[in-house]
Amino acid sequence: MSEGDGLSYRDAGVDLDAADRAKHALKELVSRTRDENTLSEMGLFGGLYALPEKMERPVLVSSADGVGTKLKLAFLTGTHHTVGQDLVNHCVNDILVQGAVPLFFLDYLATGRMEEGVVTQVVQGVAQACLENGCALLGGETAEMPDFYSSGEYDLAGFITGVVERERILDGSRVRPGDALIALGSSGLHTNGFSLARKIVFEAMGLGVEDLIPGLEKTVAEALLAIHRSYSASLRPLLDSNRLHALAHVTGGGIPGNLPRVLGDGQGASVDTGSWEVPPLFQVLQGGGKVAHEEMYRVFNMGVGMIVIAPPDDADSVANDLAAAGETSWILGEVREGGGVELV
Amino acid sequence: MSEGDGLSYRDAGVDLDAADRAKHALKELVSRTRDENTLSEMGLFGGLYALPEKMERPVLVSSADGVGTKLKLAFLTGTHHTVGQDLVNHCVNDILVQGAVPLFFLDYLATGRMEEGVVTQVVQGVAQACLENGCALLGGETAEMPDFYSSGEYDLAGFITGVVERERILDGSRVRPGDALIALGSSGLHTNGFSLARKIVFEAMGLGVEDLIPGLEKTVAEALLAIHRSYSASLRPLLDSNRLHALAHVTGGGIPGNLPRVLGDGQGASVDTGSWEVPPLFQVLQGGGKVAHEEMYRVFNMGVGMIVIAPPDDADSVANDLAAAGETSWILGEVREGGGVELV
Repeated sequence: MSEGDGLSYRDAGVDLDAADRAKHALKELVSRTRDENTLSEMGLFGGLYALPEKMERPVLVSSADGVGTKLKLAFLTGTHHTVGQDLVNHCVNDILVQGAVPLFFLDYLATGRMEEGVVTQVVQGVAQACLENGCALLGGETAEMPDFYSSGEYDLAGFITGVVERERILDGSRVRPGDALIALGSSGLHTNGFSLARKIVFEAMGLGVEDLIPGLEKTVAEALLAIHRSYSASLRPLLDSNRLHALAHVTGGGIPGNLPRVLGDGQGASVDTGSWEVPPLFQVLQGGGKVAHEEMYRVFNMGVGMIVIAPPDDADSVANDLAAAGETSWILGEVREGGGVELV
Repeated sequence: MSEGDGLSYRDAGVDLDAADRAKHALKELVSRTRDENTLSEMGLFGGLYALPEKMERPVLVSSADGVGTKLKLAFLTGTHHTVGQDLVNHCVNDILVQGAVPLFFLDYLATGRMEEGVVTQVVQGVAQACLENGCALLGGETAEMPDFYSSGEYDLAGFITGVVERERILDGSRVRPGDALIALGSSGLHTNGFSLARKIVFEAMGLGVEDLIPGLEKTVAEALLAIHRSYSASLRPLLDSNRLHALAHVTGGGIPGNLPRVLGDGQGASVDTGSWEVPPLFQVLQGGGKVAHEEMYRVFNMGVGMIVIAPPDDADSVANDLAAAGETSWILGEVREGGGVELV
C-alpha cells in the first residue's frame, strides 16, 4: 500500500514505473529498425511512416497474426526472442503472398506482470526480424493485465503493413489449370499446430522440453522452437520480375486449408505427397499421437512452408532459382480444373 | 477422440470447424465496412487497401492498442460488443491526434475456446465502430489457444492505419508557450485504470456488477462499460481547417502522462483542476479506494478524454465550435515555459 492506507495502481498489480523503464530499454532496439521513411520517434501516439515515393498506384496490404500456443514453449524454456522472430516472419510471409514489400510492423504484448527481461527479449526478436525483413518497427503496445495472464505468461500479436503496385497484386486471379505448384521447405512447425504437438510430446510421449526427440538429434525445445522462416529474400526477385502466378503461405489448416485461398472458382489442385519426404519431426508427432494421416496434413505444414504457383513452362527454372537462393524447393503438384485439393 | 484412438486437433482443444463457422458469420459484418478503396474480400492472407488518390505527400500513421482489463467487465456481464467499440475508438483517437484520417483497422482476438456468439458480438462492436469512424475492417486474426485463457475469457487488440498529408502532421512542433489547453469530456474511464477500478469496486466497496454505484443512478456495469468516445467527428473540421497546434489523447498515465507527449523540450503546462467538476464516478472511486489525489490523476482520465492545444486567440472559438459539435468542452489551462505538467 502506498500513501497511508489508500489503494494505488501498483496495489492493483500495475507498475507504471516498470512500464516506463521497459519502454526506455526498448527505444534503442526499436530505433535500429528505422529507415528513411520512418518519421516518428517512439513515444508518439501513433507511428508515422512516409509512403515510398515514385509509386504509381500504391495498394496497402495489411495482416494481423499471433504466435499461438508456441508461446508455451517459450515459457517452458525461458527463450523469448525466437517467438518475436516467428511473429514478424509469419506476418511478412502473409503479405508477401500478395506481392507486398513490408513497410512497418507493430506488436502487441500483453502480460500479467511486466518482467523487463522477458519483454526486452521478445522485442529483441521482433526488432531483429524487422531488420532482416527490411521493415520498420513503428510502434506497439505493451499491456500489463494482472489477473489475466498466469505468472510468467504473455500473449503476443503482430500487425504488418506493406505496399504493392496495383497491377502487381497477387490475388490468385492469374492462376490457370496446369500451373505448377512449387514447394518451399519449412524449418519446422512454424507457428501452427502447437496445441496438438504439445499434447503429443508432453502428454502422449511423456517428454520434457530438454529431452531428445527419439530419432532426431534435437531436444523438444530445439525442434519445436525452430524459427518460422521468412521467404521474403528468396521470393522478392521472382516477384519483382513478375514470374509468379500466386503464393500460398502454409499456416493454420495446412496445405489443404491454404492452397484453396489462391485458387479460382472451379479450380483445384493435385499435391503429390510422394514428391518429398515428410521431415522426421512430423513423423514422430504422427506416431507419438497416432494422428490420422489427413488430420496431420490439416494441422501441420508437413515440411512445406510456402507454395509457389508458376506457369508450367517456367516451373523448373523457378525451382532452380529458389534452390540457388538457398531454399529447399521441389515441384509439389499442379493446379487442375475441378474443385478440391487432393493429396495423391 | 476421433478415428480410432489417435489424437486430433479437436482433442487438443482446437476446433477448426468452429473457427470456419465463426469466420463465415463475420464475413457479412466485415463486408458492411468496405469502402471504395477496400480491394480484398475477407479470407485472403492480407487485406488490400488502395491508398486514396490525390494526396501530395501521404504519411501513414499507425497504432496498436488493447482494451486492457476492461475486458473483465465484459466477461462478468456477458456484454461483448462495447469492448469492440472501445478498441476501435481508442485506436481512432490515437492516430487522430497526429491529424490522420483512419483508413483501415485489423483486430486480434485470442480465446481459450471459440464461442461463436461471443466472437460475433465482439466483431459486431468492432464493425459498428469502424462504420461510425469511416474506416474499413480490413482483416484480423481469431486465435483459439486452449490452456491459455480461462474459460469464457479472451484478449483483444487492435491495429489501425490512417493517413495524413505530410505538412498537416500534428507532432507537437507547433506548440508554443501561451497556447490554450481545451478539454473534451470523457464518457467514463474509457479504457484505462480498470485494474484499480475493479479492485476498488469489487473488493474495497464489495459491489457486484449489477449493484447501483452509491450516488450514481447507474449500475457498476453501466458506469464501467461506458464506451470509450471517438472524437473524430468533432475534431475533423478543426483539423481540416488547420486551426489546432496539437492534440493529446488522455490514456494510460492520465493527463500528466499524456500531455508531455506533445510538448516540446522546455515546455510544460498548467492544468487548472478547478476548471471542471470531476465526474461523480471518479469521486466514488477515489473515496472507495482512498486513492491519493495524484494517483487518481495518473491512473484515470478524471473526466478529460482529449486535450486540444490551440493558439490563445482562437481558444474560445475552438471551444465553442466543439460545444456546437456536441462535445463538453472547456478551457483547461495553458502551455508554459518550463518543464512539467502542474495540476493547480
